[in-house]
Amino acid sequence: MYRTHTCGELRIAHKETETILAGWVQTIRKFGSITFVDLRDRYGITQLLFGEELTKLLDESPLGREFVIQATGIVQERSNKNLNIPTGEIEVNITSFKVLNKSEVPPFTITDETDGGDDIRMKYRFLDLRRNAVKKNLELRYAVGRSTRNYLHENNFMDIETPFLIKSTPEGARDFVVPSRMNPGQFYALPQSPQTFKQLLMVSGYDRYYQIVKCFRDEDLRADRQPEFTQIDCEMSFVEQEDILNMFEGLVKRIFKDVKNIDYTDTVARMTWEDAMWNYGNDKPDIRFGMELLNIKKPASVYVTKSDRTDLVGGADFKVFDEAETVIAIAVPGCSEYTRKQTDEIMEWVKRPQIGMKGMVFIKVNADGTYKSSVDKFFSEDRLKAIADAAGAKAGDLVMILAGAEERTRKATSELRLEMGKRLGFRKDDEFRLLWVLDFPLFEYAEDDNRWVARHHPFTSPKPSDIELMINTSPVITDAAKYLEHPYANIKANAYDMVLNGNEIGGGSIRIFQRPLQERMFEALGMDEEEQNHKFGFLLGAFEYGAPPHGGLAFGFDRLCSILGGSESIRDFIAFPKNNSGRDVMLDAPSSIDAKQFDELQIKLDLKNV
Amino acid sequence: MYRTHTCGELRIAHKETETILAGWVQTIRKFGSITFVDLRDRYGITQLLFGEELTKLLDESPLGREFVIQATGIVQERSNKNLNIPTGEIEVNITSFKVLNKSEVPPFTITDETDGGDDIRMKYRFLDLRRNAVKKNLELRYAVGRSTRNYLHENNFMDIETPFLIKSTPEGARDFVVPSRMNPGQFYALPQSPQTFKQLLMVSGYDRYYQIVKCFRDEDLRADRQPEFTQIDCEMSFVEQEDILNMFEGLVKRIFKDVKNIDYTDTVARMTWEDAMWNYGNDKPDIRFGMELLNIKKPASVYVTKSDRTDLVGGADFKVFDEAETVIAIAVPGCSEYTRKQTDEIMEWVKRPQIGMKGMVFIKVNADGTYKSSVDKFFSEDRLKAIADAAGAKAGDLVMILAGAEERTRKATSELRLEMGKRLGFRKDDEFRLLWVLDFPLFEYAEDDNRWVARHHPFTSPKPSDIELMINTSPVITDAAKYLEHPYANIKANAYDMVLNGNEIGGGSIRIFQRPLQERMFEALGMDEEEQNHKFGFLLGAFEYGAPPHGGLAFGFDRLCSILGGSESIRDFIAFPKNNSGRDVMLDAPSSIDAKQFDELQIKLDLKNV
Repeated sequence: MYRTHTCGELRIAHKETETILAGWVQTIRKFGSITFVDLRDRYGITQLLFGEELTKLLDESPLGREFVIQATGIVQERSNKNLNIPTGEIEVNITSFKVLNKSEVPPFTITDETDGGDDIRMKYRFLDLRRNAVKKNLELRYAVGRSTRNYLHENNFMDIETPFLIKSTPEGARDFVVPSRMNPGQFYALPQSPQTFKQLLMVSGYDRYYQIVKCFRDEDLRADRQPEFTQIDCEMSFVEQEDILNMFEGLVKRIFKDVKNIDYTDTVARMTWEDAMWNYGNDKPDIRFGMELLNIKKPASVYVTKSDRTDLVGGADFKVFDEAETVIAIAVPGCSEYTRKQTDEIMEWVKRPQIGMKGMVFIKVNADGTYKSSVDKFFSEDRLKAIADAAGAKAGDLVMILAGAEERTRKATSELRLEMGKRLGFRKDDEFRLLWVLDFPLFEYAEDDNRWVARHHPFTSPKPSDIELMINTSPVITDAAKYLEHPYANIKANAYDMVLNGNEIGGGSIRIFQRPLQERMFEALGMDEEEQNHKFGFLLGAFEYGAPPHGGLAFGFDRLCSILGGSESIRDFIAFPKNNSGRDVMLDAPSSIDAKQFDELQIKLDLKNV
Repeated sequence: MYRTHTCGELRIAHKETETILAGWVQTIRKFGSITFVDLRDRYGITQLLFGEELTKLLDESPLGREFVIQATGIVQERSNKNLNIPTGEIEVNITSFKVLNKSEVPPFTITDETDGGDDIRMKYRFLDLRRNAVKKNLELRYAVGRSTRNYLHENNFMDIETPFLIKSTPEGARDFVVPSRMNPGQFYALPQSPQTFKQLLMVSGYDRYYQIVKCFRDEDLRADRQPEFTQIDCEMSFVEQEDILNMFEGLVKRIFKDVKNIDYTDTVARMTWEDAMWNYGNDKPDIRFGMELLNIKKPASVYVTKSDRTDLVGGADFKVFDEAETVIAIAVPGCSEYTRKQTDEIMEWVKRPQIGMKGMVFIKVNADGTYKSSVDKFFSEDRLKAIADAAGAKAGDLVMILAGAEERTRKATSELRLEMGKRLGFRKDDEFRLLWVLDFPLFEYAEDDNRWVARHHPFTSPKPSDIELMINTSPVITDAAKYLEHPYANIKANAYDMVLNGNEIGGGSIRIFQRPLQERMFEALGMDEEEQNHKFGFLLGAFEYGAPPHGGLAFGFDRLCSILGGSESIRDFIAFPKNNSGRDVMLDAPSSIDAKQFDELQIKLDLKNV
């Protein structure tokens, strides 16, 4: 062993102890004839004191930042204590030292606030990983994983590994594929998730399965996606939705306790998908704050169980509202005194292409009880008051109203709510609010193919009350214009998402375990019998040999860690992430391969634009 | 929840309790007007009693093997107890039940000794996994993983995930590659191990890393290999070989305790590679028994530190020995009275193509002190005695002598020793003997290319005493005939293998952490500067920024589990294994992919033999 202690270990109680430390040179400070060196390792920083003689040696052969050294000395009390670090009361008076490895001057500083940009830090990720800020993220990730494993173990779950070289059954996202040398012309696929395997394990009787496992999706990457990502993947047999919700809110509460020392004793809130869309404009509401949506106008065909408030804006001859499919308002607390410049800025914000609205109507609910709006000439003060009241506005609030096509307007209002919530400090990093979103629609309509697609995935069961309906009704949509009238449009899924602070951290469903229902589902998704058997014959077959009722869910491990760590970016929580082009810039991968490899795999390139 | 208890849970203390169970029908036994059903789940088997009324229901709509049912009833004491199973004192008197799912008659019986052959069980792996024999293997695997994680956690190791989509740097085994759609013409590779990443993590200061991780090698499969396999992968900084040996024999001892309840208190034996080859004929000796090799004759050029016993057979004019490069003997205990038929059978055994010897010489060390041999006319009884004594034979033993070319003869003697050890019951499933094999040669000679190849891998450090020699000596072999005289031929690696009962379960090394030494190593392996930079530039670069001394090892997780489970086959310990052609016969993977996938990936097939 190169050391007797780590750089985070020595305390005043070690006074007079001889110690050997090894680590990296963080800083070198020469004071006259003596030198202080801060030595860093994974566990902390310890101050080394090089006396006159050793300082002379250093003059001849200087240390540099990030040199790796081994140093022997005696622990002594510091005259100038630093109570901000655990080792700050002592220093080590060095008697001898050895340079284990030199270091070039690093291309950026190894400090929390580094001077390195994103690109250079990714290229030298091995240096970036030395920074305390990054190390804390990976430590948090390890702690979340450890807590997860302990909780699931205590609850009788078994970690069972599923294969990575599987069969390509693209459904939704693209598969990464792997040419098979031993089976020329054939390909494996990398799993988008272990979904079918965990279901087979339930058929096999394993009852409670989990895995923290890499998954792969060949999608065009957004800032926040990685081609390979990690899931906490779980499945249980002989359970109903309620059992799963209880088990996994227990898991997240345990993680809060173990990792953040937060006692999350509140009941986890629950909300239907329809309420989430109606009141928050999206299916993963951030419920750390209110500012719920007032649905003034909605198209007749969606949210059939909900009533809007067309009365609030009708008969005013205000064309923007009259001609809009949807009108939605939110009451923003305490913003009635926004200046013209401020409201103009928000107006510009909703006009950005990412939001895509054409404008916005404001109603100021003044502190003196008066109402002032940009649409005063269409709406009397009484009518303005009625709208503001319906939106839940109080004196001092500012009501913002968006109007336009249903989907865009709802999404824009949701974004606006989140933006205002952020600006007003309602979205606190250290506040955590969990929410189950339930009762998702089972299907979405695919206009291009005039058929259904699975909203969650093709293995999700409808609500028990809809099973017979589904088995007994053809999925074929005869009149595309009236797809919303097809019985499938209203079938709800036995599915659930767990939302944390406005982020979906996990989701799952009760699964189909009956062959006829599974076949109907595949049929609804446009798969004929041959395709069903080619892609999923093994699963349909398994359902014939005593498949138990089962369900499960998967957490996005990277995302969960990033939210717990208070970061927007999952990349900060992955040791070796890829950039937005799916490249590892440190390795310079992907890259070309040898002619011999092409030859053995019996494939060749077929480039389109050379 | 579909149940209040599991099928392994109820005891006599639950008498009179109302219970709901759910599980699979294992057996149905009708006795007159009542029926007994054994219900099975992951946790055990419970006997259900269906009274007269329910038996009538069963007559109308019979249960079958592997049906999934839910049954409610009252726990009662059994009249006919089965004390072989934990639930054997009770049965559940059923009051109502529900068939949750039917089952076709399974293609083989779901019992320990099944009637299903290998192929059918692999095709219906989801049924095979129901068998208790397989379930116990996966439970053992989970227990080994759990024990590993706990030990490493307690010793400050961090689980850090490394990427799966990396760069192809084939060196030794072939890479599986993954075409990149976003980077047309370029490929990722799947990792053969996280070797370079764990070394980078050491450069990053993470100090103690581990991962239980899938690795991939596109090799022609032998019975015992899988294209994807799992490693317990570990690395430590600021350590010497001794630290690693201590840490990881501690791990294996902990696994013995946690998983097998074995207190392995013995010191783990250690042996040099040269002693292993010399005394056992291979580099992973099974030391549960002795029967060490007597090296009578060896070629001059190998095992230069060892002396053979040519005197024992010289001057006898026995051409077989005189002309052989190598002559090796073993003394097999208690076999002196083997009949001609028995010795003939062993003779045939060594002549099999897998062993490839031409014959064998026997010396019977009779109980009465006389010696009898097939080569009596060349060797006097005194000389036979001298050979037998040197081989360690006692009265009643049978000495077996093989002669021929060095490598083949040594391997054959090793195989013969293991075979005789097995036949004589010296290799007990419930005895575990650990061994470290140390001081491997750093290089092997590649005749085809007249250059060196790394015996372990290119990142293994030579022994500290050989570092200067290696840096200062060109690896070029000027005279191929005299490659053994090149200084590199005698460089020993700072590497170690852990051997359990004659199987290599893990191996590793102290790593090179100095750029000049790493460059020299790559050069020795025939890589010019350009290739070095293309393939491993990131690692060479990392070594310039303060790389600490480090080392590690990896255990073959599948193999470790199979040995602990007393099985020859790793496949029995993998939930969804592939067959010898790398196929998953259940999924029918690999398989063809869509034209659209080829199109998007910009590759096409280039089949040789269509």
